[in-house]
Amino acid sequence: MKFVLAPDSFKESMTAVEAAAAMSRGIRAVLPDAECVEVPMADGGEGFTETLAEELGAELVTTTVRDALGRDSNTVFAHHAGDALSVIEVAAAVGLGQIGADERDIMRASSYGVGQLITAALERGARRLIVGLGGSATNDGGAGMLRALGARFLTADRRDLDGTPAQLRDLACLELSDLDPRLAHTTIELASDVTNPLLGARGASATFGPQKGASPDQVRELDSILAALARVAGHDGPGGLAQQAGAGAAGGLGYAFLAFLGARIAPGVELVAEVTGLADKVAGADFVFTGEGSIDAQTVLGKTPYGVARVAAAAGVPTIGFAGRIGHGVEALYDHGFLALVPIVPGAVDLSTALADGPKNLQHATETVCRLLTATRRRAGTRPGCSW
Amino acid sequence: MKFVLAPDSFKESMTAVEAAAAMSRGIRAVLPDAECVEVPMADGGEGFTETLAEELGAELVTTTVRDALGRDSNTVFAHHAGDALSVIEVAAAVGLGQIGADERDIMRASSYGVGQLITAALERGARRLIVGLGGSATNDGGAGMLRALGARFLTADRRDLDGTPAQLRDLACLELSDLDPRLAHTTIELASDVTNPLLGARGASATFGPQKGASPDQVRELDSILAALARVAGHDGPGGLAQQAGAGAAGGLGYAFLAFLGARIAPGVELVAEVTGLADKVAGADFVFTGEGSIDAQTVLGKTPYGVARVAAAAGVPTIGFAGRIGHGVEALYDHGFLALVPIVPGAVDLSTALADGPKNLQHATETVCRLLTATRRRAGTRPGCSW
Repeated sequence: MKFVLAPDSFKESMTAVEAAAAMSRGIRAVLPDAECVEVPMADGGEGFTETLAEELGAELVTTTVRDALGRDSNTVFAHHAGDALSVIEVAAAVGLGQIGADERDIMRASSYGVGQLITAALERGARRLIVGLGGSATNDGGAGMLRALGARFLTADRRDLDGTPAQLRDLACLELSDLDPRLAHTTIELASDVTNPLLGARGASATFGPQKGASPDQVRELDSILAALARVAGHDGPGGLAQQAGAGAAGGLGYAFLAFLGARIAPGVELVAEVTGLADKVAGADFVFTGEGSIDAQTVLGKTPYGVARVAAAAGVPTIGFAGRIGHGVEALYDHGFLALVPIVPGAVDLSTALADGPKNLQHATETVCRLLTATRRRAGTRPGCSW
Repeated sequence: MKFVLAPDSFKESMTAVEAAAAMSRGIRAVLPDAECVEVPMADGGEGFTETLAEELGAELVTTTVRDALGRDSNTVFAHHAGDALSVIEVAAAVGLGQIGADERDIMRASSYGVGQLITAALERGARRLIVGLGGSATNDGGAGMLRALGARFLTADRRDLDGTPAQLRDLACLELSDLDPRLAHTTIELASDVTNPLLGARGASATFGPQKGASPDQVRELDSILAALARVAGHDGPGGLAQQAGAGAAGGLGYAFLAFLGARIAPGVELVAEVTGLADKVAGADFVFTGEGSIDAQTVLGKTPYGVARVAAAAGVPTIGFAGRIGHGVEALYDHGFLALVPIVPGAVDLSTALADGPKNLQHATETVCRLLTATRRRAGTRPGCSW
């Protein structure tokens, strides 16, 4: 039997790589000869670079870039020389994780470091970039990134602005003529589940600003600053690029990538499925196992297990979803490729125990599922020595 | 497909009857045409009478007997006129449940009410008695019961004793000539998982006395009183009836039943399996589902799910065990007829939520298991309209 194991990470419990390994152990405990193909998934958030690097056999390159507050710090990106492909992660450059809660300063936070990361990838020879959006501590519409790549943000009297929201108030003119010319020959793909536009009630500032420390007044100001940026760039009309789905991702970095760098955006799981060749690996499998910390009514809105099940369904292979928690309203998933949804906890336990025991619980649950899946054929006697 | 549903109760969450019903709902949600045979199990403890009454189509008869402290109270036993069979439960007559924690008085507690219950069953025409031992508030070696049935407990000067431990101190002579003659033609079967002897370190007083309120001094005194009873009856020698496995059940009621009433004792699940015709019902089934609040290393020591799996294994039918909690050390069960062990909780939850949601969780877990069990045949296309 052939199994494809394509879990997302189980947040705060195990990475996607660890989850796939636990699933393999569970399968092999019941079916020692089974073929287990591990394809850990990542949706663009935490661990995106590392997971894809492992999957693609890419090297991890260490480089120094500015964090959201402008301080130099070391970070990594993945590079596959053979494919001229780099994988970068916004959170690894200008993520919330590098900023103390008391340090947050959204008006001065810049995505400059993302531009540096892209430059580092281009230096390495990348012609294709895969970017994990999400987790940024910035709300600068990607102005900092563009500036690092050669764009200039100018006042009416042609004074240079640094691209932080605090300075963009005075923006009058945008010059793109010095943008790194290699970008014109570079394909950029954004992994993001965010579909918000840049501006307005569903925009970057209103939706994600507060969790980055913006006060209600700052949210309003940030929204008007980003609106001015889009206006100066000519993207603010009806149906303009500022309104595109995903433009509001990562504090407007989505907008800068889509509008100035010709990027395309896709749900993380679709992009990762494509890059990892999930469809090819699924072909001929008996079952696909996926999973995530929680599987619930939100899962059908494009989360990783849903994306995996779609790929599997296209190949006629049923998917089984494992989760630390199976929520309400999951029945709809049965119409989208899921054969069954399996909670992995062994009994009533508190959350911290459940998180700590994640790998063990997932292994046991996988084992149990394999026993059930093979019940019929084992009864028929294909496994001699079976006690019943 | 045919499923036999033979769960024990899930303590503090659902009765065996409710558990079997939840399993049926789960199966029918996936396999509307499946044959579901519900055989709720009971092990001799709480709910034994009611469960068996429902199973056998017996009537519940209300009668008045003395509780352990001698107070008249109403209770029920089950009677099946056609089979001349009654089911009685020690706990329903002289159970701990009827005695307040501050009322406990182990030296004066009597099993007299059990004798009255037997008499009531005999009056009704019973020729076969099934007795659920366990849960008694007494430690009188069954003397109270025997007295209610006509036995006399006498001092050296032929003064009548009431059979309570407090009076048995002066026991010199036992007269059984007036024992109800109908007992000689009555088959008595005891359902009990207790294997303790009457006397000594593993005896009734030492093992179960403390939980009935006996102090360490009282435990010693009770043990010597029961030893005197066995000596007067001639059952105290090596290999004597006082040493028989189960003699120590229910404060020595086990001894009285075995030694004076010709009863046989068996694990509750075996007796219930026999009475309910579990083996016949299992024949030709595809799967047997059983379960209990907890399945763990103790389960193999004769608990209900283990007994059910043995019956199923003898018929070549695999068993799947469901539990609120799957503990450590359960792997051995795979060698005793269990195909899989399935925890029913949907995620990390506190115990009270898990208990309250028991029926719903069991239904969902059963549903998931059915989806997995039928995966292969559904893939093969026997279920048209399947989305993958």
